[in-house]
Amino acid sequence: MSAKPTLHTVLSPRLLDTYDISNSIVVIIDVFRATSTIATALYNGAARVIPVDSVDRCIALGESTGGITAGERDGKVIPGLSYGNSPAEYPRSFIEGKTLVLTTTNGTKLLHMALNNGASQVVTGSFPNLSAVCRFLAKQNKNVYLGCSGWKDKFNLEDTLFAGAVIQEIQDYFTIHCDSSLMAADMYAMHRNDMNSLIRKTTHWHRLASYGLEKDLEYCVSRDVANVLPIYHEGDLVVQSV
Amino acid sequence: MSAKPTLHTVLSPRLLDTYDISNSIVVIIDVFRATSTIATALYNGAARVIPVDSVDRCIALGESTGGITAGERDGKVIPGLSYGNSPAEYPRSFIEGKTLVLTTTNGTKLLHMALNNGASQVVTGSFPNLSAVCRFLAKQNKNVYLGCSGWKDKFNLEDTLFAGAVIQEIQDYFTIHCDSSLMAADMYAMHRNDMNSLIRKTTHWHRLASYGLEKDLEYCVSRDVANVLPIYHEGDLVVQSV
Repeated sequence: MSAKPTLHTVLSPRLLDTYDISNSIVVIIDVFRATSTIATALYNGAARVIPVDSVDRCIALGESTGGITAGERDGKVIPGLSYGNSPAEYPRSFIEGKTLVLTTTNGTKLLHMALNNGASQVVTGSFPNLSAVCRFLAKQNKNVYLGCSGWKDKFNLEDTLFAGAVIQEIQDYFTIHCDSSLMAADMYAMHRNDMNSLIRKTTHWHRLASYGLEKDLEYCVSRDVANVLPIYHEGDLVVQSV
Repeated sequence: MSAKPTLHTVLSPRLLDTYDISNSIVVIIDVFRATSTIATALYNGAARVIPVDSVDRCIALGESTGGITAGERDGKVIPGLSYGNSPAEYPRSFIEGKTLVLTTTNGTKLLHMALNNGASQVVTGSFPNLSAVCRFLAKQNKNVYLGCSGWKDKFNLEDTLFAGAVIQEIQDYFTIHCDSSLMAADMYAMHRNDMNSLIRKTTHWHRLASYGLEKDLEYCVSRDVANVLPIYHEGDLVVQSV
């Protein structure tokens, strides 16, 4: 019987290069709200989501692909782009068949770091697509890094809780010697039944709720409401069946 | 009534510069075992502990001060030095009145980073001196950063649990908007009554217990058994009354 692959949790983009992620799967986690929005747009039929790290590149790719440009700073659509970061902006009636070019601060940065550091596969995870991510990871027999995007390189609770939810589902498939993962699993076990009250204590809630986004944030901690697997392939996030 | 000072928890040395620590107190936490050993040596009457970041500097300062040189790698005394990192090596009968020159990997590095980043005061914290640290912090009316040394820049549980223990004691004196602190307090609340079993799950336990240091590690999570406040002053850690 072969050894199980390993699973680690990376609590901030700043810590990514303390791990050897080569030949591994990295799950990009940005619960509020990039990866929740990506799952939702793809679940609702978007052809692809192109994650980009700058506004200029977002505009340029919007023009060259005919895609929808989206991105927010401080709770408002960025001047020059057309839509925001809210999953509620991407119902099937609007997004089906289209390309979404999305610029975000934390999640996109981590995604590009993962690619540059040699990850063999990059997928995105959020509560809306929790089960799809877990099913995929359990089947691959590869080492896994759960990458929390955090906020400006700081630790955040919501990404950590998602890592904990994944670990609780699939821990039997992996060898886990990682304090960050033990902590994430503990935190999820402690709070899985009071997620809506816990998220009201997070710094991110206080940042976004002042923009009137409470409903958005509650959606972003709802399990399996947009249950597809976004996988990165040549610049695009597309749906892969699992 | 003036606003309360703030308190943050820094989960890895790598994250220190995401915070503005100027004019603040930084608590260096390296539970297994540097800061536990520092508290113990000073509690047992050492005149001072000089924390240094290299073996060469440890040897040089040992010669110039007539101090005891100490440091370990992989559970063994470093060649050229005289003693190790175990608090059990520093009973009063041995250390009273002496200078201890101690080189450690993680704690010393964070201490020097804190000084270089403008901290106005640096103290060291561990379960053996938990109450002394809390009493000091509660009285200063200054912003506080609880700095976890981690292991080679990775998050670890034992330093986080100590941060959580401090927060539980003194949270009423501070404004705390910090996900790392919320998490640390939750983890301590969850595990305060099973510390000896929890530490057996940590990666650091597996690293050190293979060297036969179980008793050492249990001592390092014992509250107030060496209850002094080590404070940094011109190169030395010395006891300050609180």
